[in-house]
Amino acid sequence: MSKVNLREKLSMFSEKWSPKVIAEMNDYQFKLVKIEGDFIWHDHSETDEVFIVLEGRMEIEFEDKVVELNEGEMYVVPKGVRHKPSAEFECKIMLVEPKGVINTGEADSNLRAPNDEWV
Amino acid sequence: MSKVNLREKLSMFSEKWSPKVIAEMNDYQFKLVKIEGDFIWHDHSETDEVFIVLEGRMEIEFEDKVVELNEGEMYVVPKGVRHKPSAEFECKIMLVEPKGVINTGEADSNLRAPNDEWV
Repeated sequence: MSKVNLREKLSMFSEKWSPKVIAEMNDYQFKLVKIEGDFIWHDHSETDEVFIVLEGRMEIEFEDKVVELNEGEMYVVPKGVRHKPSAEFECKIMLVEPKGVINTGEADSNLRAPNDEWV
Repeated sequence: MSKVNLREKLSMFSEKWSPKVIAEMNDYQFKLVKIEGDFIWHDHSETDEVFIVLEGRMEIEFEDKVVELNEGEMYVVPKGVRHKPSAEFECKIMLVEPKGVINTGEADSNLRAPNDEWV
């Protein structure tokens, strides 16, 4: 493989809420996502999910709390825990999770994005 | 868990070549490491290993090439591939790999760091 430059990869797409794979490690993937506005409530019953904020600010709402993440901050959403990501303004994040995870988890939504789309 | 602020965690230790765990996702760990000078040639026979440069510049030497990584760049070292990380000046990086991976891999070295040390 070649090295991956995060800023360069982020410049290659503009869609919101549509994760783009940039690297694979064993059966895990690193994905970049641009988000803005509200996502839907969902969970991933089989896996934890890591959020790392590269630029901007986002929130992850849980049933019992809200976590605000700024640039350079990360959070591990435990498997099976319902959450709703949102961002008032565009925010650029990196996700780390097993290959095959669907962005909308168990939920039915038109925000469901194509899986395994590389940039 | 609480959110993890990378800069804050980086300020909590100064040793070089001694990975500090900051988060776990399933059976994987995210580790911060400060590096300077030359590490040893080694490999990890069971797993890929991800390097993400948070600050500074580093090189990873392979038997057939040298990869230079700057801030905001990442690289996946494939399992079983011999490599030698180095940095002319202090460089701050994040590693992602399965829990239990030893920094010196299969090699015998006094640079072998304690495993599973959190910060």
